[in-house]
Amino acid sequence: MFTDAWTASARAAPGRPWGEALLRFLTGARVHISGAMTSNDRWAPLATQLRADSIRATTTAGSGHPTSSLSAADLMAVLLQDHLRADWGASTSFDEDRIIFSKGHAAPLLYAMFKAVGAISDAELLTLRKLGSRLEGHPTPRLPWVHVATGSLGQGLPAAVGMALGARLLGLELRCWVLLGDSEMAEGSVYEAFELGGYEGLARIVAIVDMNRLGQRGPTMLQWNGERYAERARAFGWNAMVIDGHDRAAIHRAYTDAEGSDRPVCIVARTKKGAGVSFVEDREGWHGKAFSSDEEAKALAELGNPAGDLVVRPPGARGRRAAPELPRGAFRAPRYEVGAKVATRQAFGDALRALGDARGDVVALDGEVGNSTFTEVFAKAHPERFFEMYIAEQQLVSAAVGMQTLGLAPFAATFAAFFTRAHDQIRMAAISRAHLGLVGSHAGVSIGEDGPSQMALEDLAMMRAVAGSTVLYPSCATTTVELTRQMAERAGITYMRTTREKTPVLYGPGERFPIGGSKVLRRSGGDVAAVLAAGITLHEALRAHERLAADGVPVRVVDLYSVKPIDAATVEACARECGGRLIVVEDHFPEGGLGDAVSEVFAGRPAPAIVRLAVRSLPGSGTPRELLDGAGIGADAIVEAVKRASRAPAQPGSP
Amino acid sequence: MFTDAWTASARAAPGRPWGEALLRFLTGARVHISGAMTSNDRWAPLATQLRADSIRATTTAGSGHPTSSLSAADLMAVLLQDHLRADWGASTSFDEDRIIFSKGHAAPLLYAMFKAVGAISDAELLTLRKLGSRLEGHPTPRLPWVHVATGSLGQGLPAAVGMALGARLLGLELRCWVLLGDSEMAEGSVYEAFELGGYEGLARIVAIVDMNRLGQRGPTMLQWNGERYAERARAFGWNAMVIDGHDRAAIHRAYTDAEGSDRPVCIVARTKKGAGVSFVEDREGWHGKAFSSDEEAKALAELGNPAGDLVVRPPGARGRRAAPELPRGAFRAPRYEVGAKVATRQAFGDALRALGDARGDVVALDGEVGNSTFTEVFAKAHPERFFEMYIAEQQLVSAAVGMQTLGLAPFAATFAAFFTRAHDQIRMAAISRAHLGLVGSHAGVSIGEDGPSQMALEDLAMMRAVAGSTVLYPSCATTTVELTRQMAERAGITYMRTTREKTPVLYGPGERFPIGGSKVLRRSGGDVAAVLAAGITLHEALRAHERLAADGVPVRVVDLYSVKPIDAATVEACARECGGRLIVVEDHFPEGGLGDAVSEVFAGRPAPAIVRLAVRSLPGSGTPRELLDGAGIGADAIVEAVKRASRAPAQPGSP
Repeated sequence: MFTDAWTASARAAPGRPWGEALLRFLTGARVHISGAMTSNDRWAPLATQLRADSIRATTTAGSGHPTSSLSAADLMAVLLQDHLRADWGASTSFDEDRIIFSKGHAAPLLYAMFKAVGAISDAELLTLRKLGSRLEGHPTPRLPWVHVATGSLGQGLPAAVGMALGARLLGLELRCWVLLGDSEMAEGSVYEAFELGGYEGLARIVAIVDMNRLGQRGPTMLQWNGERYAERARAFGWNAMVIDGHDRAAIHRAYTDAEGSDRPVCIVARTKKGAGVSFVEDREGWHGKAFSSDEEAKALAELGNPAGDLVVRPPGARGRRAAPELPRGAFRAPRYEVGAKVATRQAFGDALRALGDARGDVVALDGEVGNSTFTEVFAKAHPERFFEMYIAEQQLVSAAVGMQTLGLAPFAATFAAFFTRAHDQIRMAAISRAHLGLVGSHAGVSIGEDGPSQMALEDLAMMRAVAGSTVLYPSCATTTVELTRQMAERAGITYMRTTREKTPVLYGPGERFPIGGSKVLRRSGGDVAAVLAAGITLHEALRAHERLAADGVPVRVVDLYSVKPIDAATVEACARECGGRLIVVEDHFPEGGLGDAVSEVFAGRPAPAIVRLAVRSLPGSGTPRELLDGAGIGADAIVEAVKRASRAPAQPGSP
Repeated sequence: MFTDAWTASARAAPGRPWGEALLRFLTGARVHISGAMTSNDRWAPLATQLRADSIRATTTAGSGHPTSSLSAADLMAVLLQDHLRADWGASTSFDEDRIIFSKGHAAPLLYAMFKAVGAISDAELLTLRKLGSRLEGHPTPRLPWVHVATGSLGQGLPAAVGMALGARLLGLELRCWVLLGDSEMAEGSVYEAFELGGYEGLARIVAIVDMNRLGQRGPTMLQWNGERYAERARAFGWNAMVIDGHDRAAIHRAYTDAEGSDRPVCIVARTKKGAGVSFVEDREGWHGKAFSSDEEAKALAELGNPAGDLVVRPPGARGRRAAPELPRGAFRAPRYEVGAKVATRQAFGDALRALGDARGDVVALDGEVGNSTFTEVFAKAHPERFFEMYIAEQQLVSAAVGMQTLGLAPFAATFAAFFTRAHDQIRMAAISRAHLGLVGSHAGVSIGEDGPSQMALEDLAMMRAVAGSTVLYPSCATTTVELTRQMAERAGITYMRTTREKTPVLYGPGERFPIGGSKVLRRSGGDVAAVLAAGITLHEALRAHERLAADGVPVRVVDLYSVKPIDAATVEACARECGGRLIVVEDHFPEGGLGDAVSEVFAGRPAPAIVRLAVRSLPGSGTPRELLDGAGIGADAIVEAVKRASRAPAQPGSP
């Protein structure tokens, strides 16, 4: 057990600072706040300035979190001055340490640190929370020294796990320092990070828990029971210690020891919220409140009215300064015979492998279902670039976000339904301006017998509503390959939905599938309606076309493989040329999916009749065929819908 | 520390089985699989039948998870025969023990248990995974003995936490037995449950971890390192022990001791996947695969071809048999003066408190932001019915799901943006046929300076796409009160979005707001367009109306407080009567929100021109006014949109 090992090491080397602190903890001596804050140590001026600037910025803004910044000021002063190996300003090094404020609401402190190294001016500091300022209420990568956006708690440490995995792959020496609040230690995502970080032995992560005892509306569950947090970290394979978070000499020793650890380290720092300002220190009711001008003056006086012009010279970055050059060759697309039956999830696996062959920056992550999503094909070919995230979808997405900050091109895959588990992480990834590919398999009722818990019926709604996202839904292996290739080039969050069932290959090798495009698969001069579909329902539409043709009813069939952006021109042409009758068929709930995407094409002007065939009640188990038909999205329902629509008078459909 | 206490108790009472096992663990002796499975013990016949039935059902279905059922068969045989205090069949008692298969894919084993107590017939068992059968691929409450749906991993234990909290409130004696897989121990949600369960001391929860070492695609992180799982549970305040999960006598002792524990208990059971069938036992490659007929015959022969007609008589339920009667009185609605400025989130708090005054079944849960969501108003009045879930949104929703299984009417609240963290739990709640109210505050860019991480801009899309959901978005305190009242009566998942900013009260006391309705706030005979809005943008629409009126441009303004179901009749009337010009304004991304809801009204027929004003790029920090205007959803943008639309030719809008 780690505790035993560390007890032994502490006893064997009592002179070492880490040993001392650990021994103190293990022998039950309480760590008290020492009052060292006022002692004359070399970190004191910086700590004081960070406090003063956190207060000044928030009072100028009229909102924000001064007290949550004050509790961590000593922790950050020591880190910045002596441990955080980074270059600042324009000439940032690639292989520099990362500081992640997982407690994003302490942003004023982070910005005060940026000022203290001369990366931003005092004037910019005072733009905090103003329209157009890079200094938002919570940190975002609009600032070059912020690598991931935070503000939704419990996401900084999981992102650091991704960075550390990526850094190891790339042979970088950087360390990830993560400042966490104690309130966010309630988030399960934090334990996913402890778990994977411990399992992978990511020794270059240091988690610093600012245990200030007070959450937004009152005390945390554990308050100052730092030993309990440390026990948890150890139970996940981390080294952990409890220190006085205002004793800067102790902080320095802890960081120094963390730098020598062979495992990830969790430093639990006992602090006081509002530390350094007597009228708020350790008091409830001060969360997220800026000081008034009078309170500001009083607080700054207590801090000795520091001049605020201190610029520290922190240790610069070590290691390589430029991004590693990764091999880049031609993409050799897997080829499939038209008519062969291949699941799009299988084609994704084949394509990802080929992408990995061509590009050294492509990495894959999976939620322990690689034999379902077919990332296992990539994993076999490129084991060093495959990352098993186990059944922890939040960590899956956060790790991908962390990796892309290093210039890697991550693809994260799991069942499409289970990306809902990481919805908040995906939302935040967009705020992080992340570039990543998400691939969800087993979409819709067509998965069959497993039942609704495994069926994604809301993923299109979720992913369309992600800022700047791209949403793809191929129906055929050839399409899947070409879209997978483009995903690696595409900015922002790109989502592809794949199908469990094998479906016939529709297109031959070499066919192009531009994002924002579509394919008209069946057309005639006299089409009475257009059926717009994607994925499994496109095959139903083709079956319907065949039967309608036999009945002498000509109908257009369109493959809308690009859900967002959608091919507006083709949709409009369908409306114009097919009597203003559009029939959208999707293996998804009616809200937020393909039907809504098609409707939005006509925003601002009169729209054609859009019939929406979708899954309108909660499905159960059954065969794929039974469930498609039962939901009214199979060929029978399409035939019926076309016939019904064709009896209505034709409409021009477009002004 | 618990370890110390338990070591002491184990040494003091070595004769007690729990003590023995614990001592064995603490002294480092390994627990080996004992081969007891073949020994002649009183649980053997049931265990064998459960195995045989799990195999028969899955082979008949042609799919499913026999091996994941086999590993837990001994654990469940002992539980069912001697510990699970429940009545079965039609006359189920209210206060009976719950068995929750958090590893829902082991459903065949659960159904075999139902057969073994005579609750279902053998014929029904063999309908597993067939269309229309109650026996779905993963358990759902279509079966009366299944209280929450599972199948998305890591959700059973958090639901049990909610049940146990509810049971304690109601004075019930029931115990929640939760079967977990070891793969799902990677999910952060499990640790949220450990954390809250430990903190609350929920001694009537027993978590049984079926540690069969093998996940879907290979070994788990910890494989058979049960000690590590136990350490984790202890670090969260649980009693924990490691046992041989095929030694039925040891299982019996562990359960007996768990029944006497004063804390929640975690039993880590070392098992073999596929246990009892030699050709699959502890082998990779057998996850989620049904046996062929030949394999089935071979397996059943190994099990001694049990007759399968064993019906066990388990211990019946203790405690009260009927649901407790909770007080129910008249709802006294809080009243607000028309024109007073009151935030809808504040009105929600007031209404929830009044609802709590009137109804003893109403409970409230919050994600440690009760002073922002205003659940604190309820908490002050009804502290015993307020449940602080801390910053663990997954646990927040799962606890509410657990509570409503006991007939309670839970309201769960946090920032609307942070419900994305529980999207999977909400999706599963719908499959659980749960009745609960979710209330998300701080919607949209109008929150201002905190920035995008705190702004819900996708919550309407997420919540509209939940099966059977209701989505509400009041603009005024009076509306909020009346909608809150109705939420408690409403079936399914009901979501209400509230606003941070104070807004003028629009309606007087006594006004009715039926779900599915709307309010026409401004109208004239010659309206050139209709502005459809809800929440903060309705107030912008009213400001726009005033300015347009001054310019002599009459426009209709409609309050669409019911987003789903939407008031189709009024929307259609607006199109008909306002020149076919609709302008939808929402503080939300354009995808999946109010604009899409309005579009869907016209599904299947030609639609009017629908102008969609929504948030089209990632916002930053700023004042609410700056951000509303910047996003083009403020009064200026509405005035401009109305003027632009009125220049286009009028359309009939509706056939």
